[in-house]
Amino acid sequence: MIKTVIVGATGFTGSELVRLVLEHPLLSLEMVTSESKAGQAFSRIHPQFLGLYDEPLHKMEEVFLINPELIFLALPHGVSMDAVKRFKDSGAKIVDLSADFRLDAPATFEEWYHQPHSFKEGFDYAVYGLPEVHLNRIKEASLVANPGCYPTASILGLLPLAEAGLLADKSVFIDAKSGTTGAGVKAKEGTHFCSVNDNFKAYGIATHRHTIEIEEKLTKAANSSLAIQFTPHLLPIDRGILASIYVPFIEESEEKILRMYKERYQSHPFVQLVDSPPELKHVRGTNNCRISIKKDYRTKNFIILSAIDNLMKGAAGQAVQNANLMFNFEETCGLNQIAFRP
Amino acid sequence: MIKTVIVGATGFTGSELVRLVLEHPLLSLEMVTSESKAGQAFSRIHPQFLGLYDEPLHKMEEVFLINPELIFLALPHGVSMDAVKRFKDSGAKIVDLSADFRLDAPATFEEWYHQPHSFKEGFDYAVYGLPEVHLNRIKEASLVANPGCYPTASILGLLPLAEAGLLADKSVFIDAKSGTTGAGVKAKEGTHFCSVNDNFKAYGIATHRHTIEIEEKLTKAANSSLAIQFTPHLLPIDRGILASIYVPFIEESEEKILRMYKERYQSHPFVQLVDSPPELKHVRGTNNCRISIKKDYRTKNFIILSAIDNLMKGAAGQAVQNANLMFNFEETCGLNQIAFRP
Amino acid sequence: MIKTVIVGATGFTGSELVRLVLEHPLLSLEMVTSESKAGQAFSRIHPQFLGLYDEPLHKMEEVFLINPELIFLALPHGVSMDAVKRFKDSGAKIVDLSADFRLDAPATFEEWYHQPHSFKEGFDYAVYGLPEVHLNRIKEASLVANPGCYPTASILGLLPLAEAGLLADKSVFIDAKSGTTGAGVKAKEGTHFCSVNDNFKAYGIATHRHTIEIEEKLTKAANSSLAIQFTPHLLPIDRGILASIYVPFIEESEEKILRMYKERYQSHPFVQLVDSPPELKHVRGTNNCRISIKKDYRTKNFIILSAIDNLMKGAAGQAVQNANLMFNFEETCGLNQIAFRP
Amino acid sequence: MIKTVIVGATGFTGSELVRLVLEHPLLSLEMVTSESKAGQAFSRIHPQFLGLYDEPLHKMEEVFLINPELIFLALPHGVSMDAVKRFKDSGAKIVDLSADFRLDAPATFEEWYHQPHSFKEGFDYAVYGLPEVHLNRIKEASLVANPGCYPTASILGLLPLAEAGLLADKSVFIDAKSGTTGAGVKAKEGTHFCSVNDNFKAYGIATHRHTIEIEEKLTKAANSSLAIQFTPHLLPIDRGILASIYVPFIEESEEKILRMYKERYQSHPFVQLVDSPPELKHVRGTNNCRISIKKDYRTKNFIILSAIDNLMKGAAGQAVQNANLMFNFEETCGLNQIAFRP
Repeated sequence: MIKTVIVGATGFTGSELVRLVLEHPLLSLEMVTSESKAGQAFSRIHPQFLGLYDEPLHKMEEVFLINPELIFLALPHGVSMDAVKRFKDSGAKIVDLSADFRLDAPATFEEWYHQPHSFKEGFDYAVYGLPEVHLNRIKEASLVANPGCYPTASILGLLPLAEAGLLADKSVFIDAKSGTTGAGVKAKEGTHFCSVNDNFKAYGIATHRHTIEIEEKLTKAANSSLAIQFTPHLLPIDRGILASIYVPFIEESEEKILRMYKERYQSHPFVQLVDSPPELKHVRGTNNCRISIKKDYRTKNFIILSAIDNLMKGAAGQAVQNANLMFNFEETCGLNQIAFRP
Repeated sequence: MIKTVIVGATGFTGSELVRLVLEHPLLSLEMVTSESKAGQAFSRIHPQFLGLYDEPLHKMEEVFLINPELIFLALPHGVSMDAVKRFKDSGAKIVDLSADFRLDAPATFEEWYHQPHSFKEGFDYAVYGLPEVHLNRIKEASLVANPGCYPTASILGLLPLAEAGLLADKSVFIDAKSGTTGAGVKAKEGTHFCSVNDNFKAYGIATHRHTIEIEEKLTKAANSSLAIQFTPHLLPIDRGILASIYVPFIEESEEKILRMYKERYQSHPFVQLVDSPPELKHVRGTNNCRISIKKDYRTKNFIILSAIDNLMKGAAGQAVQNANLMFNFEETCGLNQIAFRP
Repeated sequence: MIKTVIVGATGFTGSELVRLVLEHPLLSLEMVTSESKAGQAFSRIHPQFLGLYDEPLHKMEEVFLINPELIFLALPHGVSMDAVKRFKDSGAKIVDLSADFRLDAPATFEEWYHQPHSFKEGFDYAVYGLPEVHLNRIKEASLVANPGCYPTASILGLLPLAEAGLLADKSVFIDAKSGTTGAGVKAKEGTHFCSVNDNFKAYGIATHRHTIEIEEKLTKAANSSLAIQFTPHLLPIDRGILASIYVPFIEESEEKILRMYKERYQSHPFVQLVDSPPELKHVRGTNNCRISIKKDYRTKNFIILSAIDNLMKGAAGQAVQNANLMFNFEETCGLNQIAFRP
Repeated sequence: MIKTVIVGATGFTGSELVRLVLEHPLLSLEMVTSESKAGQAFSRIHPQFLGLYDEPLHKMEEVFLINPELIFLALPHGVSMDAVKRFKDSGAKIVDLSADFRLDAPATFEEWYHQPHSFKEGFDYAVYGLPEVHLNRIKEASLVANPGCYPTASILGLLPLAEAGLLADKSVFIDAKSGTTGAGVKAKEGTHFCSVNDNFKAYGIATHRHTIEIEEKLTKAANSSLAIQFTPHLLPIDRGILASIYVPFIEESEEKILRMYKERYQSHPFVQLVDSPPELKHVRGTNNCRISIKKDYRTKNFIILSAIDNLMKGAAGQAVQNANLMFNFEETCGLNQIAFRP
């Protein structure tokens, strides 16, 4: 059993991680930290764990007392970088769920996140934790930067086309919709029940930070500069992301492209090609990404739909998948959940 | 007071029409029909009207007994065409809320709706009831084909660009999301609460019938053939449509295009240009269409968001707006509702 | 036109009041205040009013500049008492939507609300604004204490039984459920979308402040001390209260009790006796209270269901009803909304 | 591994059973049947199982071909009785999730369900499958009648009081609220998304069939006739039941009653006494029943809140718990799910 610590436990990602680690056959949960709630029982903050995990929350400094082998960082971006720095020589492998080491260079981070980066050396060895792209590098990594939720759905939906050189610059349109857990646990006017319920809106038009993460990874896959049009929307549901992706003017047939996707993903257990438009409840509670491919022969455009659970494949599930790889476990270990439906 | 009849009253559009006509200062509701529920009190089917409209539902044939001046047809497509034929010499002006006379030619209808048209002559004089396009023709019309919900949001979002010749064929992407009233009142597996709640999906990829309606009207506005990429989605809310529209590679500045929209719509009271992404609750219960315009200077793409209430500007509200024009009333008469929020 | 001011406009009740006053034929909205948002356009805070009411919010002190005839106070309890004191000699009639003057005596307020009362003289002339009880006193009042939302639904559901002496002390059970607007506009952990959505819970067991308001008014109606069991619950919806009320061991027949209710309420246009259990959407957006009566002959218990829209009959609608009475208008003036369904 | 068959798989209970059996370490799923969908892949009907259980659905008669050791019947009441009859000599242990054998006598069934019973002999050996009451009898049973969802929440909330003789006839009030899965998978007007969403209502006042099931079991526990007031309501959520229970005039202290509950349930792992009102999301996806106890000293009434997931402890989860007991497995085997929140 791998001695595991979760740093930062008040958010949705934190509690999802606790759930996954508790249910994981090869990870043992040794400590959960929260600077703001230290001393309180974890199950007081997240009452669904009553009787299941009633341990007190700890201060981050106490992590050093127990020599963990695996640390999940579920901290806000801008805060996580300091924790990475702090734990870098602890001997533990780190999966960082924040945005702090996802991009290729500190300068790009600073430009899009409008704040200085306090641990630029981390970029030298952080590995972007999308196992469908960097499987082998993740296995060797000591620091994995767990991908963003929108980028996970978007990149998986476009990766085979990018690698085949079929994407054109500035001509890919990603219209993405996320459940409200994606907006974080903090109570804000915009996450008040009456703001979200029976409502729908777009936000962050042309400015959302996940844009650069998607562009950078697809650019690398395509080996050619790719600006992307990305628009997020807020759904009146708890969890799930659907990315509806439009790729114009591809001569290849639907069958050919579908075959290309199936081959690309055949050794990746969490990516599934499906015949009908995937529904969010089909992936809810799972680490799966379901993708459908459709060509409109009238327009020659491809319509690709990519669905994930933003807290699972979009956050905590993918973090555990990365940890599995880092410790040479079966990639799907502890991640065989059947979708929670209805 | 104009003697008004509503034909077909069991659906969402029918009850919304009854509400609007009852509240309208110049229309008097003389009769409501339903073939399947004739004899029952209207307020038994729609209990919110108890004490407000308890009249019995009638058979359609009884409409002839009262010589109405205005008939709203809230019937399914394929059924409405026969009613139009039946009432054509009744002396009443007709607003048909079905799809039966929206397209330019019977052949197009038959191709996209996969059924024969039984009253092709109607196309000779039916006017497409989008007042922002056909204001004067609607004023003279005896038969108005009330636009579809998705087409209303989509066309209004694109009309100024189409008229300016700035749209390219096959290069306009409309990612549209509708509340579940858009799927109709009939109980189906797909409209079961547990199918829709906490869920989200796309449907009708590359095949939805509203595609041709959008294309045909924009083609006419642009005077140039325009195939459109249109993808509808089902939202877990009651009402509202948000069309997120992507128009690639336009050199003009955001300010210039915004000014163009404002000028185009300045005499049209129900279309409002807004600074921030419109939310569906901002238009819920109103006949308004709120549109925001954003240029992404990185990609030169425009992102246009267009929001309506699908039962109001997308159906019953627009029908009343058309009736106002046909009877030379103030266009906004009976349509000054303030959005129902929260 | 009565010169009207709304004091406190950032909450749900405030914006609902603005809507009702704007649509009211005999009230003119002269000013809206907000201490925290003064200077900003009202329609910036509540974007649904864009183009309809773009006036800036004012400081409360500016109210004196315009000599209003009617002031609605939509302030938190504990804050409103000072405003009542401040405006008491302004010549304006006041409808106070807070809890500050609802109870019969300052001491009761201080006991249940755990804070001192700063304007005890107000109790000498404040009238409890439930028109179905105090119609004539409201017509003469200069200060009306608008009832709480739960008390409105509960008292109307029990009033005829109380007046008939059929309620027994400690033997009335009110199981009430409210939409989330009832929890206020402030963003809190408990009103986060993901806390409320797909969830349900009771709260304030045996301690909710509305208990004493219900007891006090029913005790007066019964002329006999009545402790009540009241339990509120939080519904994952925006608006509406359903009070499910259990009254044990009544010998009278269902028909007799129903007749008693119908007679009691026959001159009160907003209370409607219905045959089937009322649904919240049947009253949504209206000032109506719908009540159903059922006797279970096996147990001799009565089950009474009472439904209102908490922002309308439970707050802003009832406030306008009270204002209508205070100015000798038709009681229903501006309050003929048809339920917003679906 | 116990060879297991699930008969009836198109409903919510059926798919939940498939999920639980697939995840159960000691049950192997050999066959799933559906008369109406036989021949189709199970994962076509329930797409969340794609890749996990793609086996075809079978006709019920094919069950005999495989000699199962355990049969779950997830059939409508009135249909299940024939299946029980059919499989009674098959050698398999049967857990019947319908209402057909829950009551003590065929006559009671026929009175409350308004239909004849075709297999009255079954009552001779069927055991009511509430393990917290009949643990030992379930272990010996060949036919278990799995309790109804409302009865499970209600009985567990009242059992210790009943056994202690503290309940009075006709003086217990159960105000219960259920998610929409409780209304079944069939598309009906009342389960249309737009009927349920943002709405709330009571139904089946004084007539719901679960009333007699609750009364009969509590009467037996109390050894004294107990008529109960039971009122169900429909919540706009997928899953969960909250029963808010009122028990008047009990002299004992809250502490004493709480202790009594804790002792009663200390050996029953799925019943948890909690300090705060239980929320439905705290039990969602689990087999737990969470109960809170509160005495209102003003009225001497007890308010008991009992929360379950209606598809788990209220149906499929309890069925697996019963199967565990019938096969002498650990009672919690395969039922250690952590609540799905958010």
